[in-house]
Amino acid sequence: MNVVDVIAAKRDGKELSELEIRQLVLNYDAGRVPDYQMAAFLMAAYLQGLSLGETIALTRAMVDSGTTLDLSKIAGIKVDKHSSGGVGDKTTLVLVPMLAACGLKVPKMSGRGLGFTGGTLDKLESIPGFTTALNADRFIQQVQHIGAAIAGQTDDLVPADKKIYALRDVTATVDSIPLIAASIMSKKIACSSDIILIDVKVGSGAFMKDLDQARNLSRMLLAVGQSFNRQIVVVITDMNQPLGRAVGNSLEVVEAIDTLKGCGPSDLRELCVQLCGFVLNLVEYSRSDEECAARASAVLDSGDALEVFREIIVAQGGNSRVIEDTSLLPLAQIKEEVASLESGFVEAINCAAIGKASAVLGAGRERKEDRIDPAVGVVVRKKLGDPVERGEVLAEIHANDGERASAARKLIADAYCLGPQQRPGPSLIYEVIR
Amino acid sequence: MNVVDVIAAKRDGKELSELEIRQLVLNYDAGRVPDYQMAAFLMAAYLQGLSLGETIALTRAMVDSGTTLDLSKIAGIKVDKHSSGGVGDKTTLVLVPMLAACGLKVPKMSGRGLGFTGGTLDKLESIPGFTTALNADRFIQQVQHIGAAIAGQTDDLVPADKKIYALRDVTATVDSIPLIAASIMSKKIACSSDIILIDVKVGSGAFMKDLDQARNLSRMLLAVGQSFNRQIVVVITDMNQPLGRAVGNSLEVVEAIDTLKGCGPSDLRELCVQLCGFVLNLVEYSRSDEECAARASAVLDSGDALEVFREIIVAQGGNSRVIEDTSLLPLAQIKEEVASLESGFVEAINCAAIGKASAVLGAGRERKEDRIDPAVGVVVRKKLGDPVERGEVLAEIHANDGERASAARKLIADAYCLGPQQRPGPSLIYEVIR
Repeated sequence: MNVVDVIAAKRDGKELSELEIRQLVLNYDAGRVPDYQMAAFLMAAYLQGLSLGETIALTRAMVDSGTTLDLSKIAGIKVDKHSSGGVGDKTTLVLVPMLAACGLKVPKMSGRGLGFTGGTLDKLESIPGFTTALNADRFIQQVQHIGAAIAGQTDDLVPADKKIYALRDVTATVDSIPLIAASIMSKKIACSSDIILIDVKVGSGAFMKDLDQARNLSRMLLAVGQSFNRQIVVVITDMNQPLGRAVGNSLEVVEAIDTLKGCGPSDLRELCVQLCGFVLNLVEYSRSDEECAARASAVLDSGDALEVFREIIVAQGGNSRVIEDTSLLPLAQIKEEVASLESGFVEAINCAAIGKASAVLGAGRERKEDRIDPAVGVVVRKKLGDPVERGEVLAEIHANDGERASAARKLIADAYCLGPQQRPGPSLIYEVIR
Repeated sequence: MNVVDVIAAKRDGKELSELEIRQLVLNYDAGRVPDYQMAAFLMAAYLQGLSLGETIALTRAMVDSGTTLDLSKIAGIKVDKHSSGGVGDKTTLVLVPMLAACGLKVPKMSGRGLGFTGGTLDKLESIPGFTTALNADRFIQQVQHIGAAIAGQTDDLVPADKKIYALRDVTATVDSIPLIAASIMSKKIACSSDIILIDVKVGSGAFMKDLDQARNLSRMLLAVGQSFNRQIVVVITDMNQPLGRAVGNSLEVVEAIDTLKGCGPSDLRELCVQLCGFVLNLVEYSRSDEECAARASAVLDSGDALEVFREIIVAQGGNSRVIEDTSLLPLAQIKEEVASLESGFVEAINCAAIGKASAVLGAGRERKEDRIDPAVGVVVRKKLGDPVERGEVLAEIHANDGERASAARKLIADAYCLGPQQRPGPSLIYEVIR
């Protein structure tokens, strides 16, 4: 294979063969294709696009660059989930225990990533003692015994994806639907579950800003997943305001626990119930979505899901007393309120700005090596459509630094847009693609 | 400047500011922007294009990355020329002495480059003793004394262009009109001449395959040159067959000497006369193109141009007796003829294939470190429109290796396409842009 010819073909909008893509990716992973040639290819792919066939080939090559999880020792149906990411998205913390409580096996590996708040791993690590560094044996045994485990992705999974993702980040080639689809799916395929649930967020706080874009990504994710013979459901959900109320690591754990106890925010509960239902529908497709959602609701109401969450905490070395006493979680020293300067109805929330406020407080990381502060974050008290009186609290700031709190306050105040008329809030779920 | 933002802007088809381009190029040259970011930028620029303003900014940044030639000690009007390159293009060897014989000063620096045959430097170095490695002082003194010098480009000129060109070569981003224009013009501007002649070749043996492409490049070259206050003329000339008959280093020197003596191929003579005329017209614009061409012809017929060529050889350490006795030049051991298997008229010549044949024989280099064989090459005996009898010689092969000769023979035989009707050959000059 002549690398320059392959780059030139993509540059000219031609479709590459599976072999060409495979050799490009595996040679890049092995250091035989330099960064600058991969960068030129990625920009050509960004601008000329990749066909479904090319995207599948890219996914397969990235999977084959490393090892795949061997889940054969785990009896039962294995389920994995992925979210494209949003502000206050603690769905995994609630949904994984729910799925396990429904009798499914949930070997959930997460990457650490960058973002407004930490990822699932960071959130869980705010629980004293909790470890997400499980080796493969311990990870599998835990799923066998309690039905679920949530751990950091091991280094030998999809190394080519890691290398390519890092390169995309510094070459302005992140925001490409086929490249995003291949990156997401390579990780899910390498993790070997039978069923894959993907939550594609769309809106002001999400990577995907409009529904058409989200729909294109969702269809590609579905088609790639199906080409690997996985059962897959892709759900496009709203991210025009934070999910639930809490944004920040330990704050989100508290909210997840509340939801597992039945007293969390209604939107978070509803989303988790629906998502869990869609997965159950793939397993027992004779049941309707309504019946499946009812079953999902039941494991919340019965406390079964909460018990699985407790078992996960215990199995992974955490202090499970946080479930009864959330004050055992890291708490911020400063708690301030952001009051509204006017009356009206919440018409829009710049969701990315709320995320940014949380990042400014120290809840997220910009660079891989940044440390996050588990205690800080934002709790929104008013959501879309809510009536607000002048002087009422829009949001709370949890901070460990006064200056950062001031910066966050400004971001939050500017993020809210009030209007004279009450408009209905956005749908929670826009589309289910399966 | 955030490099990723600059790449993203170009990716999205936005026009960059002069400062953004300048910082990108100078930081790249200084090693502060890595190859992979420049590669992504180059691919984005390839696919989204660069405006004239951006191309001028790129040119200026590459010029400013190094030093420029100081020609202030040379009295008179300084002329530079550039050819976009073709098969058998020995124009510089004839034209530089002609321009000097017309009283102009010709400080000509050439790059070494890759290609089917060597460049001007390699051709001249086939003259025993000839050196093209002149330092700036010696180069300038020679131009002062005899009106012309032809030397290798010094390392301190346009270092950013060299680095970017090398990167384009391995990232499939060579064939972009604004990137080509900036690369050509940065070198010409750094060489500081008052007048710039550019010969843009178009046809089967040229980089530019069609006239529209050549015209776009030419217009951009003109506009960039004018923005630096240079007098510039761009001439689009034919490259659908080798220029003259000889393709190969010492073979081309012989043909150049023949042309300076008045007995060279008519197309080469005519092209040199016309090009020289266009330059003279820029100096004395009250004279018509015809008058200027007549003056150019005169310096060939008088032997004045030949005398300048002799002086150049002597000044640069070469054996000037080659002018009288071309057998002093390196000669190939094997001389074979390629005979036609059919009768007809030459309808087409795959000019690139003739070049390839010459490269196969060892006349060119694929990699910078390759050594060329100065003696080998091809002499075409039949050109477009020529009648051919079965068994007549189409071309001669000059080789030092039997196997290579066989490979070249096949390429040459396949390159000729004969037809039943005589069609007129192509125009020598398609367009003059000034």
